[in-house]
Amino acid sequence: MDRNLYEEDHEQFRALAAEFNAREIAGHYQQWDEKHMMPGELWSAAGGQGLLGLAVPEEFGGMGLADYRFRAVLDEEFARANHLAVALAFHLHDDLVLPHLLAYGSDELKEYWLPGMVSGDKITSVAMTEPGAGSDLRGIRTKAVRDGDDWLVSGQKTFIGNGVSGDAALVLARTDGSGGRGAADSFSLFMVEKAEGYSTGNQLDKMGLKASDTAELFFDNVRVPGRNLVGEVGRGLEYAAGQLPQGRLAIAVAAAAVARAVYEATVQYTRDRSAFGERVLDFQNSRFTLADVRTEVEATAAYVDKAMLAFNAGRLDAVSAAQVKLFASERAKSITDRCLQLHGGYGYIMEYPVAQAFLASRLLTIFGGTSEIMREVIGREIAR
Amino acid sequence: MDRNLYEEDHEQFRALAAEFNAREIAGHYQQWDEKHMMPGELWSAAGGQGLLGLAVPEEFGGMGLADYRFRAVLDEEFARANHLAVALAFHLHDDLVLPHLLAYGSDELKEYWLPGMVSGDKITSVAMTEPGAGSDLRGIRTKAVRDGDDWLVSGQKTFIGNGVSGDAALVLARTDGSGGRGAADSFSLFMVEKAEGYSTGNQLDKMGLKASDTAELFFDNVRVPGRNLVGEVGRGLEYAAGQLPQGRLAIAVAAAAVARAVYEATVQYTRDRSAFGERVLDFQNSRFTLADVRTEVEATAAYVDKAMLAFNAGRLDAVSAAQVKLFASERAKSITDRCLQLHGGYGYIMEYPVAQAFLASRLLTIFGGTSEIMREVIGREIAR
Amino acid sequence: MDRNLYEEDHEQFRALAAEFNAREIAGHYQQWDEKHMMPGELWSAAGGQGLLGLAVPEEFGGMGLADYRFRAVLDEEFARANHLAVALAFHLHDDLVLPHLLAYGSDELKEYWLPGMVSGDKITSVAMTEPGAGSDLRGIRTKAVRDGDDWLVSGQKTFIGNGVSGDAALVLARTDGSGGRGAADSFSLFMVEKAEGYSTGNQLDKMGLKASDTAELFFDNVRVPGRNLVGEVGRGLEYAAGQLPQGRLAIAVAAAAVARAVYEATVQYTRDRSAFGERVLDFQNSRFTLADVRTEVEATAAYVDKAMLAFNAGRLDAVSAAQVKLFASERAKSITDRCLQLHGGYGYIMEYPVAQAFLASRLLTIFGGTSEIMREVIGREIAR
Amino acid sequence: MDRNLYEEDHEQFRALAAEFNAREIAGHYQQWDEKHMMPGELWSAAGGQGLLGLAVPEEFGGMGLADYRFRAVLDEEFARANHLAVALAFHLHDDLVLPHLLAYGSDELKEYWLPGMVSGDKITSVAMTEPGAGSDLRGIRTKAVRDGDDWLVSGQKTFIGNGVSGDAALVLARTDGSGGRGAADSFSLFMVEKAEGYSTGNQLDKMGLKASDTAELFFDNVRVPGRNLVGEVGRGLEYAAGQLPQGRLAIAVAAAAVARAVYEATVQYTRDRSAFGERVLDFQNSRFTLADVRTEVEATAAYVDKAMLAFNAGRLDAVSAAQVKLFASERAKSITDRCLQLHGGYGYIMEYPVAQAFLASRLLTIFGGTSEIMREVIGREIAR
Repeated sequence: MDRNLYEEDHEQFRALAAEFNAREIAGHYQQWDEKHMMPGELWSAAGGQGLLGLAVPEEFGGMGLADYRFRAVLDEEFARANHLAVALAFHLHDDLVLPHLLAYGSDELKEYWLPGMVSGDKITSVAMTEPGAGSDLRGIRTKAVRDGDDWLVSGQKTFIGNGVSGDAALVLARTDGSGGRGAADSFSLFMVEKAEGYSTGNQLDKMGLKASDTAELFFDNVRVPGRNLVGEVGRGLEYAAGQLPQGRLAIAVAAAAVARAVYEATVQYTRDRSAFGERVLDFQNSRFTLADVRTEVEATAAYVDKAMLAFNAGRLDAVSAAQVKLFASERAKSITDRCLQLHGGYGYIMEYPVAQAFLASRLLTIFGGTSEIMREVIGREIAR
Repeated sequence: MDRNLYEEDHEQFRALAAEFNAREIAGHYQQWDEKHMMPGELWSAAGGQGLLGLAVPEEFGGMGLADYRFRAVLDEEFARANHLAVALAFHLHDDLVLPHLLAYGSDELKEYWLPGMVSGDKITSVAMTEPGAGSDLRGIRTKAVRDGDDWLVSGQKTFIGNGVSGDAALVLARTDGSGGRGAADSFSLFMVEKAEGYSTGNQLDKMGLKASDTAELFFDNVRVPGRNLVGEVGRGLEYAAGQLPQGRLAIAVAAAAVARAVYEATVQYTRDRSAFGERVLDFQNSRFTLADVRTEVEATAAYVDKAMLAFNAGRLDAVSAAQVKLFASERAKSITDRCLQLHGGYGYIMEYPVAQAFLASRLLTIFGGTSEIMREVIGREIAR
Repeated sequence: MDRNLYEEDHEQFRALAAEFNAREIAGHYQQWDEKHMMPGELWSAAGGQGLLGLAVPEEFGGMGLADYRFRAVLDEEFARANHLAVALAFHLHDDLVLPHLLAYGSDELKEYWLPGMVSGDKITSVAMTEPGAGSDLRGIRTKAVRDGDDWLVSGQKTFIGNGVSGDAALVLARTDGSGGRGAADSFSLFMVEKAEGYSTGNQLDKMGLKASDTAELFFDNVRVPGRNLVGEVGRGLEYAAGQLPQGRLAIAVAAAAVARAVYEATVQYTRDRSAFGERVLDFQNSRFTLADVRTEVEATAAYVDKAMLAFNAGRLDAVSAAQVKLFASERAKSITDRCLQLHGGYGYIMEYPVAQAFLASRLLTIFGGTSEIMREVIGREIAR
Repeated sequence: MDRNLYEEDHEQFRALAAEFNAREIAGHYQQWDEKHMMPGELWSAAGGQGLLGLAVPEEFGGMGLADYRFRAVLDEEFARANHLAVALAFHLHDDLVLPHLLAYGSDELKEYWLPGMVSGDKITSVAMTEPGAGSDLRGIRTKAVRDGDDWLVSGQKTFIGNGVSGDAALVLARTDGSGGRGAADSFSLFMVEKAEGYSTGNQLDKMGLKASDTAELFFDNVRVPGRNLVGEVGRGLEYAAGQLPQGRLAIAVAAAAVARAVYEATVQYTRDRSAFGERVLDFQNSRFTLADVRTEVEATAAYVDKAMLAFNAGRLDAVSAAQVKLFASERAKSITDRCLQLHGGYGYIMEYPVAQAFLASRLLTIFGGTSEIMREVIGREIAR
């Protein structure tokens, strides 16, 4: 059954992305992985190639590729090349930070930020989670206090991808001056640039995706110019909620891409590898396992692709996106696990793509809202 | 996320189907279940309502509704009304027998069979499986020997739905006169009518779907007029293979319909039922389970609906259909099991729809090719 | 690895039980199944053979076989012979009713009840569950009011096995005269004999285990002599809680027995049955599936056998029993499902033992406290 | 339910092991992990504490603790302290190399090797697997050729734990001079010491357990004195088969230990961590998940403990050991996965024990024979 999703433009973009992976990443990725950091030049190169800020309109220096299928193509090529940490780093920038700026930012803010986000000169991260508040955003304590036209931001954030390498973070902060769990209108969003009082904690040693730096951030009265307030004061939570569909869809798309890439790599591995005088692929157990995997890969694609088209049409609600995220991330986790197993001992060695994909997939049911949070969101809708 | 599959015509047909379920079946179904038989009048009534032989062209008395979505609507309404044995009986007639006649039958054959299949005057069954050969059709032993313009058919078939109530069976028989596992061109298809030498064994006591009669058939030199040969001699296996996509798709569609209906019934049940002073739906475990179930229902629908459109466009290959069948039937089995569990003791009582749906679903991973056969088919494609 | 559980005495008892199954049940079971009822003579025969009231001391007419391994042997033989409805009927009598009488009953009560329970002259059922209260016993509404030395019992119970065939039911009733959810000391236990005001509703049509009659019971001012009060007034809940270990263990033992019997039957089936020119057992998928099943059967046995010895030593607490029940019943459900699948179409036909075992197993995760209740009980212990 | 496995002696040994973990490892483990190597002094310290070569008889410098429960205690303490790479390194030495020497070695060989293996002066590894032959030992190509009283060994081995740090490897080599898959008597076992021609390839970058060095070994005419031949020529495969029970049991024991330790750590974590104003442990989903986990931990323990006692009694056959290994390793994999998930984002950070245990567990279904090999072994026994 044909997939039937992409058109000519997408395939051209895919060729660019594939070439970029081969030329700019392939020879270096392992080193970045060991250093737990990828270089700033990668971002510039990606910007130069038109791989960043896809949805940015031409007036702000972008190509206006709001069609999410371009992002999906990019994810698929990162997955095929097994450069998943780069996919994650770009995801934070393009799927989490950018949509907030596009949807709610003033023209002044857009002019200041978007061209650099497209060119790769400005690397961004998203800073919502705090040590004491993950999915429960109303529990966050970072606060922003007005000081003339500026704001002073203080607090602590954790699990911040691009936290070390990034130039600025999209920060959710309390702006109502109170403590405790906040009211719906207690929070606002700011682009917080590196400045005095902005410090980065030690990098967190993640299980996988190591080339994507992740750290705690500390803000001690960081001065933020008024221009960097995103939209209106007190609407931060509402804005964050408004971008949940894209954030969730993006993870589902990445999960589907990883699952497919790992499936294909495993078919190849079991075709090439022999045991007891037979190709591993010829054992009935291998064929049955891969039959299940292939089927799940295609079912996941059908579901995710449908969500992608709904998103393009402005009709993907947050609960449906949660369902797609839940489904695709759980399938990716399970698929990479079974594929790893078919590799035997080699599956446990990091030089094999399946090992890296397995570790990357393990984040997908956690990141962007755990599967438990997704079930909570969906279940609440059911129980209304 | 909208399902986006059906159009106005389908919804009108759905209204007819719903009305038919309420008027012609609802008050009688339990009795049919106890008798392990539904009456011939049901078929006439269904024919009168336009629910049989959907794909039959107008020239042969039908409505020419080859668009598979009409069949899907029917399955969904049978599932919602929990009249799954009727769905099975009609499936055999419309999805298994009919397509062979439409695709390969001579005009003479079509004129003889199709009007009655549309009106419900001719109830048909499909007779491929034998006690010693299930999915391995080359192992069948029923044979047809030419006798002038007629054929004489002898042999034994088993697991024949509509085997008692049916007027005729679409029979795969050997026509090469040899024994052992046959060559590809050793088999032909015949419509075998009840006649001398045609006898029906005891009904098989199935675990569920009891109102759909199932039996062994015995043929002892049953005379079959030449007109009832389907297509050409020696192409029976090829013909059967050619109709695999529809047979598999049909089960996937039914599975998706059952899964959705059971999900909806279970949401309602857990909403209405209390335990420990709370609605069962309000326990986190219930909400989480139903969140998973709803997600799987929608993922399955996305996959099956996509296959349905591919089928309509003539682009559903047999392996893709096997994947869709595997996925949907396994999901239906698991979903009905979890939904039954949420019913507690009531789930074990046959008057509750979930109990019947659970039993019906258990057939779906077996019927029309077991999940193991599906994996074999898919795995062979992967390993090529 | 040897099982190492049974001794000479148990094996002698096993021979008796096997003979009993062959002589008294095998030729009739299917008929009982169709009638949804087994005859009273079966109980007398079982009593005559020493298969009822095992734990009853000699002074009350029994053999004093409190060692639970004798009950386990019986369950194993019922499972091997596929007479699971008999196992269930005897379980209610010996594992649920009897222990309460032995532990809390006055000598007068014991003298009145125990000899008949041993001989099979008195068939008993347990009546705790009500339409509005399953595991939440504090929500029951059946009430007992003192009337001189007697009590008058009124209320409704449901899911009562042996409800039609039984001579008396062990009833939990409120004795505090209040409404709402009761306090811990609001309930008492009574043996309620058939008498004026005691009526049996329609039998419930269970999914499986049909030969074991199950019904609703209605009590309308049924007079109960003071002798039939079990233990002291107000301690009913405490008594019921005290017998939870045996009730749960018993289901675990039955589950383990069913799992093992089905495993063995499936090895035999796949050994005898061929497809595509090979024994089904020789497909790698069959061997792998059965390898998992055999492993789970033995792991379950190790766990359950350990619990049995702990129970014999008086050291099986209710939470540990809940864990064993949860584990064994979930394993039995899954094992019978996989074994059924290996039977292909035959697994769906009731004459095959695996079909009946599959249906019986589906009750095990519900009956005696659902898996959800078990998890609640265990989880509460963890969270203390 | 009490575990009932250990006696006073074992608990004293546990105290030693716990103290050793705290004193000798805790402060250094992370550093070893980063270096992918643990120091030789660790082995000396362990030897000094009596933690190595437990089963070595007193005449060869050991304590004669052949009772496998001492090894289990050690594994449990390594698991509790999350020093799993040390457990692996010691396992290779004590469970794989040592038993072959004890069972088949000449007195001369024992005198040469055992005292140093007890003291930690001689670190050993086991070298069976080759790049082209994993579980299929008959496919190995490393060969040993007699040269006077010595042997010359040539070939390549892979996945060799302690491969860099070890002083010698127990090598399976062909001694029949032929090629192709060998006959049963084509192989012999040698202790190959580091010497001219013995070289170590690059370390393999494993997914977890990094402090345990793993590498390829290359032998180019390495001279091996006759004393280092283990047992008789031509019996290598037979010897290796004879030690399968201990190798498999050992992994099962380790798996059970890891599962239990992770369960306990996760109860603690969810008790300490809050979300949405509640302890994570108080969410029904957490309690239900942990109820399942606890139950599986105890079922696994029951099964593994039983196997341990059978092993002590000399009655654990290789197939039963395969079943226990399969069960325990699959449970450990699943349990650590679910426990990781309950940690949310923290589960993905390497400083949390659950992350390390998850990675360690992923090896358990691969190492010492994959789950697929276990199923093959068990399935073959069933299909006999």
